[in-house]
Amino acid sequence: MQQSRFEFPSLPEIENEPLKKEIRNHLDDLTKPKGSLGRLEECAARFMQCRGSSSAKLERMSLITFAGDHGIAGQGITPFPQEVTAQMVLNMVKGGAAVSVMCVNAGIDYRVVDMGVASELPDHPLLIKRKIAAGTSDLSTGYAMTSEQCAAALSIGIELAEKSEADLLGTGEMGIANSASASALYALLLGLDGAETTGAGTGAHGMLLEKKRECIHRAVVHHQREWDGTVFDALCRCGGFEIAALTGYMLGAASRHIPVVVDGFICSAAALAALWINRKIADFLFFSHVSSERFHRAFLNQEGIIPLLDLDMRLGEGTGAVLAMQLIQQAVCCYHRMATFSSASVSREKEGHV
Amino acid sequence: MQQSRFEFPSLPEIENEPLKKEIRNHLDDLTKPKGSLGRLEECAARFMQCRGSSSAKLERMSLITFAGDHGIAGQGITPFPQEVTAQMVLNMVKGGAAVSVMCVNAGIDYRVVDMGVASELPDHPLLIKRKIAAGTSDLSTGYAMTSEQCAAALSIGIELAEKSEADLLGTGEMGIANSASASALYALLLGLDGAETTGAGTGAHGMLLEKKRECIHRAVVHHQREWDGTVFDALCRCGGFEIAALTGYMLGAASRHIPVVVDGFICSAAALAALWINRKIADFLFFSHVSSERFHRAFLNQEGIIPLLDLDMRLGEGTGAVLAMQLIQQAVCCYHRMATFSSASVSREKEGHV
Repeated sequence: MQQSRFEFPSLPEIENEPLKKEIRNHLDDLTKPKGSLGRLEECAARFMQCRGSSSAKLERMSLITFAGDHGIAGQGITPFPQEVTAQMVLNMVKGGAAVSVMCVNAGIDYRVVDMGVASELPDHPLLIKRKIAAGTSDLSTGYAMTSEQCAAALSIGIELAEKSEADLLGTGEMGIANSASASALYALLLGLDGAETTGAGTGAHGMLLEKKRECIHRAVVHHQREWDGTVFDALCRCGGFEIAALTGYMLGAASRHIPVVVDGFICSAAALAALWINRKIADFLFFSHVSSERFHRAFLNQEGIIPLLDLDMRLGEGTGAVLAMQLIQQAVCCYHRMATFSSASVSREKEGHV
Repeated sequence: MQQSRFEFPSLPEIENEPLKKEIRNHLDDLTKPKGSLGRLEECAARFMQCRGSSSAKLERMSLITFAGDHGIAGQGITPFPQEVTAQMVLNMVKGGAAVSVMCVNAGIDYRVVDMGVASELPDHPLLIKRKIAAGTSDLSTGYAMTSEQCAAALSIGIELAEKSEADLLGTGEMGIANSASASALYALLLGLDGAETTGAGTGAHGMLLEKKRECIHRAVVHHQREWDGTVFDALCRCGGFEIAALTGYMLGAASRHIPVVVDGFICSAAALAALWINRKIADFLFFSHVSSERFHRAFLNQEGIIPLLDLDMRLGEGTGAVLAMQLIQQAVCCYHRMATFSSASVSREKEGHV
């Protein structure tokens, strides 16, 4: 059992009735029927509340893909070999991965962090090297990370968010077998059967999927018996370097009043850990999409979260986050650039028109 | 009863097995698990099929907001006065409306067409003047349009699409009381009670909404008795200049192999008319979002259409179309710019990994 002495950043309170009202009044003054931009209005309002100002600009968007390898890949539960993590990191920084193409197209600053890829990677301007180890240990046979490793991963995530100059941060991940790690983490934290939270990941089907589910089921049964009930210990047992870093990244961003867009299944597991650490993080998280990965929809439903998009995607990397960031950007643009009824000389609704 | 002698453009067939396979092979060769971009892959594939090439570029996106007034506004069924149509057209071309802000932000060419706004509008580079009349007649007391007017509106829509140089077209509309017109058109074409297809529009609530529903109910009962069963006659009875133009615009675009993104409730009514004219149009239409306007979800469900977005929006103008165009653009960007497994030296899935 590992005790957490980790000090998480404290999070601000975004509830501020006068500010909320000011934002609402501005939205209602724009040339459109009240509330007719639906969830875009919610996005704009929450962005302003997170930033603590009714005139906050969204000038810089930044997305980090956290990459790491997983010892559990050695159990042969993924269709892709482990070297794909390093190959895809290189593909990402060279601009050939889906997330890199999308970020360039959307005007989002993009970086990849090597949190613990199994092989050495060459230098690249878009690659931030913070390797903790060459992959985690196998969570199906013991702890995935030592408490020192977990603390280091959390700290790196916090630090990367805290030093960001962006107004909106996006999350992404890459790591062969990290869906297995995320599935185990969901099951442990939520007290579920690991087989229930485990899906195809990059494409485990048939016997391979059965093997993966059985593997996570058994691992979680073991960890559930030994777990000390803290998030920190859960991350040490079932997490990954990139997952713990993502949790830290979300908390670090929120501590600096920066909202964060959560990608899919794996980033949501990191968000679940962050929510357990501090419920206040909820105000700062924008869930981007429902992944088609098993259990993601069920998780979101049980948390009462309705993500912005539902496009049957299951790629990860941050691809869902990018699309949602574009929606939030449009929402904030409308907030700032639309004319008001008076500035545009547009007649308002008739009062008492009944 | 009005006979249609209108000649609609003929539409191409997009079914082409070799092309479809070529597109699928390319998508599967990109560095991602097969199918993991979900509906974005469908969008990219259908875009290529519409354009008739596996290497079609999406370089230019263009959106037109069709504006027109409606005689039925005189029944006092909308919370906003009729002059708002003209005021909003000016707001749109000056860049202060939601759709104009969003188009600028998304790099979409934007124009407004005056199809029949009740008042005279000043010249503006973004305003195309094709006024047929100063608003339609009141559909609750007779025909909304003469057959000459309806034919003119359809022709203008077809012509605007046919002369477009865009690779993807977006649709939008503006017109006080045009939700009433759309509701009547849905009811007439689908054989429903007008009260069922009628919702709040820009914000008719309480007694005002009851009045609107009763008004459309009665109008549709009358038209259902007299209708000759053709789409053309349905448009003459219940449509509007902007709605008929939108129907023409969709058909004209498809005839030139240009896919069209359908905005919300009102544009979908125009799409329904287009579908009745020629089912082949379905292949060219991308439904952008589910509006929160009553009956839109029910209509989409019964047609088996799952739009890309569901954001509780009900503004119209083309705002939902813009957001969907950005998704399609990201899909096509990924298609063209992502690396392939071989070009990026990424290992493929293991074969027979069971």
